[in-house]
Amino acid sequence: MSNSHPAVPFTLAGKRATVIGAGVIGSSWATLFLAHGMHVTINDPMPDIKNKVYAYIEAAIPSLQQLGLKTDQLTTHLSFESELSRAVASADYIQESALERCDFKASLWQQVEQAASKDALLLSSSSNYPASQQNSKMAQPERLIVGHPFNPPHLIPLVEVVPNPLTPPSLTARAMQFYQALGKFPAEIEKECPDFVVNRLQAAIFRECVNLVAQGVIKVDELDSLITHSVGIRWATGGPFLSFHLAGGPQGLQHFIEHLAPGMQQIWQEQQQMPVSFDEKTIHILLQQIEQSYGYQQIPQLAKQRDEQEIAVLNALSALAHKTQSTQSS
Amino acid sequence: MSNSHPAVPFTLAGKRATVIGAGVIGSSWATLFLAHGMHVTINDPMPDIKNKVYAYIEAAIPSLQQLGLKTDQLTTHLSFESELSRAVASADYIQESALERCDFKASLWQQVEQAASKDALLLSSSSNYPASQQNSKMAQPERLIVGHPFNPPHLIPLVEVVPNPLTPPSLTARAMQFYQALGKFPAEIEKECPDFVVNRLQAAIFRECVNLVAQGVIKVDELDSLITHSVGIRWATGGPFLSFHLAGGPQGLQHFIEHLAPGMQQIWQEQQQMPVSFDEKTIHILLQQIEQSYGYQQIPQLAKQRDEQEIAVLNALSALAHKTQSTQSS
Repeated sequence: MSNSHPAVPFTLAGKRATVIGAGVIGSSWATLFLAHGMHVTINDPMPDIKNKVYAYIEAAIPSLQQLGLKTDQLTTHLSFESELSRAVASADYIQESALERCDFKASLWQQVEQAASKDALLLSSSSNYPASQQNSKMAQPERLIVGHPFNPPHLIPLVEVVPNPLTPPSLTARAMQFYQALGKFPAEIEKECPDFVVNRLQAAIFRECVNLVAQGVIKVDELDSLITHSVGIRWATGGPFLSFHLAGGPQGLQHFIEHLAPGMQQIWQEQQQMPVSFDEKTIHILLQQIEQSYGYQQIPQLAKQRDEQEIAVLNALSALAHKTQSTQSS
Repeated sequence: MSNSHPAVPFTLAGKRATVIGAGVIGSSWATLFLAHGMHVTINDPMPDIKNKVYAYIEAAIPSLQQLGLKTDQLTTHLSFESELSRAVASADYIQESALERCDFKASLWQQVEQAASKDALLLSSSSNYPASQQNSKMAQPERLIVGHPFNPPHLIPLVEVVPNPLTPPSLTARAMQFYQALGKFPAEIEKECPDFVVNRLQAAIFRECVNLVAQGVIKVDELDSLITHSVGIRWATGGPFLSFHLAGGPQGLQHFIEHLAPGMQQIWQEQQQMPVSFDEKTIHILLQQIEQSYGYQQIPQLAKQRDEQEIAVLNALSALAHKTQSTQSS
C-alpha cells in the first residue's frame, strides 16, 4: 500500500467519467465526480433512474458543502445513456457499481472493454470479487482494477485499490492518482483476497455482535452505543494495532502480547466454539430489536444524521492535522 | 442498560475516593476524580508510586483542559496510603484497578469490605472478571460491581457497569449515578459475561487483523490506516447494527439480511477454519512491523497524539449534538 501524492498537479475538471449502475454507491460516485467538475454519464437500465439520481445528488448537497466541495451547477454535465457501449465510448474513467454477481460482471467487462477507449481506466466498486475473478472474458485482463469504496463514497475517505496479479504498476498508479485527485484516501492492497480487508474485519466483529445479541447479553442499540462511546472513538483516530501498542504502556505491543494476548486467545477459542448464523430465530431477534431501536425514525433521516456526524469527525481530525502541521513547520 | 440522568443534581466535590492500584488505569481514574473536586487516596505498594502518579496527572492536564475540566490545584486533595485498610476506611467510592488476577482480587475485596464504610461503593475496573468471580470471600457479595473503563478512563466516555446477580438495583443505580456525575457514559450490562461486551468485540476483530497480517495481505500500519479512514469514522458515530441498517437502503437491515448476510456468513465460515494464534512466528511478524511502523516515535508522544485526536472527535460530536438540540428546541 502506498499513498504518496503525485508530483504533478492533477485536475479532473472536464474529464469524462461513466458510472455503471446508479444505486446508492453509483449515485454517490456520480455526485463526487460532478463535484470535481467531471462530465458524468450514468448507465443504468432502471426506468426511473434519472429521478433517483437527481434526488440523491440533491440530498447530498449539504454534505458536499460541509466538505468544502463545489455544489453549484452540479448537474450541468450529467447525462444518462442506457446503452452500455455508447455510455462508455468516450469515457476516461469507468466506475462500475452494478449488480454484485460475478458472472454478470464478467460479461459486462467484456462488453465495456470492446467499446471503451484503450486509455480508459476500468474500475470496479465490487465489495466481494477480486478483479481476477471478474476479468475472465477480457482480452486485456490486466486492465481491470478494483476500487472498492465505503458507503457513502462521496464522504468516507477510504478506497481499497486492488489490482489483479497481471496489472502493471503504472496502471495501478493511475487509479491511485484518480482517487487522490477526488480527495479520497486510496490504499493499495497488493495481494488479492476475497472481500478485501475492511469487510473481512467488519464481518469478524459483526459475528460477535450477532452472538451477544442472540445470547441476550445486550440489545442492538445498546451494543451500538457501547461502540460509539469507546472503540469507535479510538478507531477513528488509530487502528487496532496502534491502539493495543499504546494500551501496553511504555513497552508497547510487547507488553500487550505478554500480558493480554493469552486472555484474548481464550476469548478467540470460546468464540470459535460458539455457533453463530443468520438463522430464522436470530433474524427475528435482530429485526425486532432494530425496529424497537431505530424504527422511530425514517432511514433517510437517520442517514442524514450519520452523514452530519461523520463529516464533523472528518473535519475535526483534518483541522487538528493542519494545526499540528503548521505548529511543526513554524 | 439504561443511561437516564438522575433527577436530583449530584456533585462529587468533597467526596472521598480511594484508588486501589495506580497503574495506567488507576492513575487516570485518580486524575478524573481530582478534576471533579474529589478527595483522592491512592493505595499502591510500588515504591516510586508518588512520582508516577504526579507525572501522569501532569501529562493529562492538557486533555483535561480541552475537555473543559478543572485543572487548578489538582493535587491539593491527593494523598497516598500504602496500607489497604487505612486507605479505604473513610472512602465513599472505592475504584480498584489492581493486578488482573482473580484470586488476588478475591482476597483484596475481603479485606476492603472489612475496613470500608457500609455505604462505600465497591467498584472494580477489571476487564476480565465478572463481580461474581471476585466476590467469593465477601460477607456481602452483592456489594461488588464492575465499572470497567476504557483507556484512558479520564477521556474515553464508556464505563461498562456490570452488577453481579445478587446486586440490588438501587446499588447499581448508585454506581451509574457516580459515573454520570463524572461525565462518563455508563452502560449497564445486565447479564454477566466473561470479558463483558466491548473487549469481546475487540478480540473478534483483532483475530482477523492478526490473520491478515500473518497471511501477508497487509501490514500493521496499513491495516490501521484502512480502519481510521473507513469504519473507524463510521463507528465513532453509529455502531455496527445501525451502520448495516443504513447500508441496506430504504429497507434497512431487512435488505442487508437478504442480500449481504449470506456473503458475510461465508466469510465467517472461512475465518472459523483459519487457525490464528499468537505463536512465535506471528509474534515476531507483529513486533517487527510495529517497530517499522511506529518505532520512529516514543510511546508517550504517540499516546499524546491519540489523546488530542480523540478529544477532537469527542468535542466535535458534542458540539454537533448541542447544535442539533438547540435547532430542534428553537
